[in-house]
Amino acid sequence: MVRWEPGTRERLQAAALELFAARGFEQTTAAEIAESVGLTERTFFRHFSDKREVLFHGQDQFLQVFIDGATAAPPGASPLEVIAAALQSAAVFFPDERRSFSRARQAVIDKNPALQEREQHKMAGLATAVAEVLRGRGTGEPAATLAAQSGATVFGIAFAQWIRDDETRPMADITSDVLQELVSLTA
Amino acid sequence: MVRWEPGTRERLQAAALELFAARGFEQTTAAEIAESVGLTERTFFRHFSDKREVLFHGQDQFLQVFIDGATAAPPGASPLEVIAAALQSAAVFFPDERRSFSRARQAVIDKNPALQEREQHKMAGLATAVAEVLRGRGTGEPAATLAAQSGATVFGIAFAQWIRDDETRPMADITSDVLQELVSLTA
Repeated sequence: MVRWEPGTRERLQAAALELFAARGFEQTTAAEIAESVGLTERTFFRHFSDKREVLFHGQDQFLQVFIDGATAAPPGASPLEVIAAALQSAAVFFPDERRSFSRARQAVIDKNPALQEREQHKMAGLATAVAEVLRGRGTGEPAATLAAQSGATVFGIAFAQWIRDDETRPMADITSDVLQELVSLTA
Repeated sequence: MVRWEPGTRERLQAAALELFAARGFEQTTAAEIAESVGLTERTFFRHFSDKREVLFHGQDQFLQVFIDGATAAPPGASPLEVIAAALQSAAVFFPDERRSFSRARQAVIDKNPALQEREQHKMAGLATAVAEVLRGRGTGEPAATLAAQSGATVFGIAFAQWIRDDETRPMADITSDVLQELVSLTA
């Protein structure tokens, strides 16, 4: 079951995730999502441009939180420290009350190659944006791109751990551990 | 200009890249590609299942070369050494005579978000396969996934460098340098 706040957008999101899980993403229409919570298709499209947006809504804010963290790192921070700052900033986007939603969302994406491609494209965009922040701070290439993509890798692995059924640790702690593991790996 | 061996498949590939570059990927049909080198659409489809395959043909071999390198690393090699072995093995897939083809191919992909998503999906698949090899060699998680994804990152950055207009160094040398840079970054 997906718990979520009771606003219209959130009701539509929760309903969509239930239907995607039960019938499959491709087999579910916007109209069916809306009807399942007593709303019209027109209301659905006031909140989301299409049914994919139910899954990817909010990604601009996530990207911004990540970039803000990198930008706010102290002057003189190493590329790895900038990435650590970005990761810690992004962790606030994943509070405990979001975990059940994130789990359900990921289960839908894992079943659909086109959605996986979109998700990977999003993470690639994240790395591109953070590399630009690093270059703006004076980091050269390939170090900027390497650090940014490593940050995206750490985020992805930490997120997969965070949504595991038996996982209760906060995202910030998991992220720190995975980043430390990357350092050990290349030591 | 794309130089390539004169077999039918290769003629079709070279012709497709020229047309994709001139008109755009979406605007080019399989029939037009075939006609431009005096062949029929039917011949095209004997070599490629669709026009995307012109760009992605050979990816299974590339994946296999990468995995073979990881598998063949000496027993007791660290995860990073296994990745280094995979990268060196994969470098043979990118000899100098392939460079102009790879440049032209990448230029087409860079202009088309759907093709970029497919390319990113391919790299994600590569990392998944190499992580499996590492786990088979006794590496735990998240180290196996971290190392495999870092290997994919290093490959991607090295490849982007290899196809730069002014670049003449062999892929194996560039790959070594980028891997070394990753080590420095996390030192």
